[in-house]
Amino acid sequence: MTQLEYAKSNKLTSLMRSIAKQEGINPGVLLRNIKNGSVVILKNASRALKRPCAIGRGLSTKINANIGTSTDKCSIKDELKKLDICIKYGADAVMDLSVGRGLKEMRLQVVKKSPLPVGTVPVYELAVNAQKYKNNLLSFDYLDMLDILESQGKEGVDFFTIHAGVTKKSLKSLKASKRILDIVSRGGAILASWIEFHKKENPFFEYFDRVLDIAYKYDVVLSLGDGMRPGSILDANDKAQFVELKILGELALRARRRNVQVMIEGPGHVPLNKIKENITLEKRLCHNAPFYVLGPLVTDIASGYDHVSASIGGALAASFGADFLCYVTPAEHLRHPSLSDVREGVIASKISAHAADIVKGNKRAIDHDRQISLSRKSRNWQKQIKLSVDPDKAKEYRVSSRPLDSEVCTMCGNYCPIKLAGVVHR
Amino acid sequence: MTQLEYAKSNKLTSLMRSIAKQEGINPGVLLRNIKNGSVVILKNASRALKRPCAIGRGLSTKINANIGTSTDKCSIKDELKKLDICIKYGADAVMDLSVGRGLKEMRLQVVKKSPLPVGTVPVYELAVNAQKYKNNLLSFDYLDMLDILESQGKEGVDFFTIHAGVTKKSLKSLKASKRILDIVSRGGAILASWIEFHKKENPFFEYFDRVLDIAYKYDVVLSLGDGMRPGSILDANDKAQFVELKILGELALRARRRNVQVMIEGPGHVPLNKIKENITLEKRLCHNAPFYVLGPLVTDIASGYDHVSASIGGALAASFGADFLCYVTPAEHLRHPSLSDVREGVIASKISAHAADIVKGNKRAIDHDRQISLSRKSRNWQKQIKLSVDPDKAKEYRVSSRPLDSEVCTMCGNYCPIKLAGVVHR
Repeated sequence: MTQLEYAKSNKLTSLMRSIAKQEGINPGVLLRNIKNGSVVILKNASRALKRPCAIGRGLSTKINANIGTSTDKCSIKDELKKLDICIKYGADAVMDLSVGRGLKEMRLQVVKKSPLPVGTVPVYELAVNAQKYKNNLLSFDYLDMLDILESQGKEGVDFFTIHAGVTKKSLKSLKASKRILDIVSRGGAILASWIEFHKKENPFFEYFDRVLDIAYKYDVVLSLGDGMRPGSILDANDKAQFVELKILGELALRARRRNVQVMIEGPGHVPLNKIKENITLEKRLCHNAPFYVLGPLVTDIASGYDHVSASIGGALAASFGADFLCYVTPAEHLRHPSLSDVREGVIASKISAHAADIVKGNKRAIDHDRQISLSRKSRNWQKQIKLSVDPDKAKEYRVSSRPLDSEVCTMCGNYCPIKLAGVVHR
Repeated sequence: MTQLEYAKSNKLTSLMRSIAKQEGINPGVLLRNIKNGSVVILKNASRALKRPCAIGRGLSTKINANIGTSTDKCSIKDELKKLDICIKYGADAVMDLSVGRGLKEMRLQVVKKSPLPVGTVPVYELAVNAQKYKNNLLSFDYLDMLDILESQGKEGVDFFTIHAGVTKKSLKSLKASKRILDIVSRGGAILASWIEFHKKENPFFEYFDRVLDIAYKYDVVLSLGDGMRPGSILDANDKAQFVELKILGELALRARRRNVQVMIEGPGHVPLNKIKENITLEKRLCHNAPFYVLGPLVTDIASGYDHVSASIGGALAASFGADFLCYVTPAEHLRHPSLSDVREGVIASKISAHAADIVKGNKRAIDHDRQISLSRKSRNWQKQIKLSVDPDKAKEYRVSSRPLDSEVCTMCGNYCPIKLAGVVHR
């Protein structure tokens, strides 16, 4: 039975209890939200997982970090180092987006080594195998698809991104649009190409019930991917995107009816004034399914600093109700990320999630800010560093620049306003 | 005559003409906005300045970068290197916030070398001189104040931050508050301490008309500082802050009556859901004077990454109407910034300003995004790098990780969605 199925029969599972404890919320509220679909728990039923993670209404905002090989950068060892960085700096989930050689070996390692839930985009394995064995990345059919889903589910993958909304219908909207960048989703581009090449409907859409069978079997959460997400802020919130979102909403209902947990993926590149509409529409069209946004980037010009652009959009999105933020690294649009890119991406995303949690009313988040501010007031540097989002970096900065008076820092030195004001006022 | 005085007599100056051209706007509209006080031009009338800068309604969002020595870090040479970084990476103005030895020499150098408008906080020189000559940083009076303002104006400083809103009245509000961090503004802390120590009113407030005489003489823009800005998001939008803001609004009217250009400084640390109120209130209480915000930081926990936290708050503030963003570096709360901290701060701030300009309807900003997205579509890497917010970093990333197929990048390699979608769709 899936967690959703248990919730529907009002059975509080031990997993729900531990999640409720971890989040500091009432287990009954959690159960109700799993039941109505506004919360999902990422944990494959067939495996042990150290740190399952729940996403959605009433919970702290979660962040995902992507790792994985590419055809150009293909070291499993390097990617596993990235996994360590993700764990160390506080990602809540990781996705293995490998498309390089040894893709399956990589996934097996990640599933084995990660204490965090692991997600994949199964169409990548389909395309990589097709390329390898048939020299055409589009040479796969729905039976191959079911095989891959079954094997990944069995291996213990906790969530699948399924681009089932890239259909003949949404493609038609795309073609009618005047977009600058047509498709920037890798899975979306593969499936759009597949539809055009085979003149058939997307197998993830056409055989969605078969997809659900497998997701149900392992309680894999389906993350309905947004293949039509905009790749430029000028393309944001267009018809193609929203036609797909409506399809995803219908699929979400079908999944829930079959007791399969589901969340929805969102953009992408969105200007500041169009973020709220995205969130509101997703919650309405997708029946309050948790919303998993990729960024969003609020400008297209920040190559080299897209973690900053994404951090702006992610904070805003989460403050309006997005539940799960996919990190973006400084390498976005430029290269396969390095270890330090991964670290910066995770931290920037955590800052967004935290800033949003404060305005979502999360008491722990608010108290965290209170504690660090109190430590600032008392010039307790050890505590201040410990409570920083990345204590390693805070410490490195502090140590690199020692003040004469150890109470202050080298920015203001003798003119530290906190010290000045503290002496005089209270 | 000041630019405001010219505007009041409907005289379009050559400075106004060149600013209008630079901004791509109608000179008549610019004149009207200078006249009604919603735009100021930073340029000391007594000196030549290569790149004067206008701030306010209908203009692109500007950014300021702070440099300056501290008592712990006191190399003028290093600070002038920072000035070069600010210029290179696109700051619109710089403030010299030196409090270290050789403060005056530093300022003379900055004013001489900077093509950008230069701002100062004159109370720092007062305190530093008092400390040096009288061994008490509070040993200065209003005559010393007038001397310093006169000499700095004569030297060519383009804008002064004047904490004239730290008064007996606003201090009373502060003391009645239950703030976590009382005062985190350096100038604010000095003046609050001065008021308490001398049992007298703040000389910048009490002798405000004399301050105006000097500002008028050199057409120095007054930036009315927010000494009461919150230092924790839990202190945001409290009575002390808004009592001060109301005082600043009254002073702004007095300045304008005397033909002195004026802008208003704002916080600081503000959670996402309280930023809009700040902007709305400033525009109302301060009669649409340009708003110069310091960040704001949307969480207190981001030490080491406060440029990211500030970037979130700054983008949001500017999208709601803030006109001028003061950068925050990764070193905030931890140390005197390094050269790379300055660069990261400038770029993060530029991203915020740009993201806001897009939603403010700035056509050049929107076209910039269009052009980079078109270059992404055509895989024109040279153009994409050139149009990036920091071409040096974008190039460094690209060069560090060369793909086999030079059309794509190493992130997706053969699975580049833009290339895939491009081949199939159009």
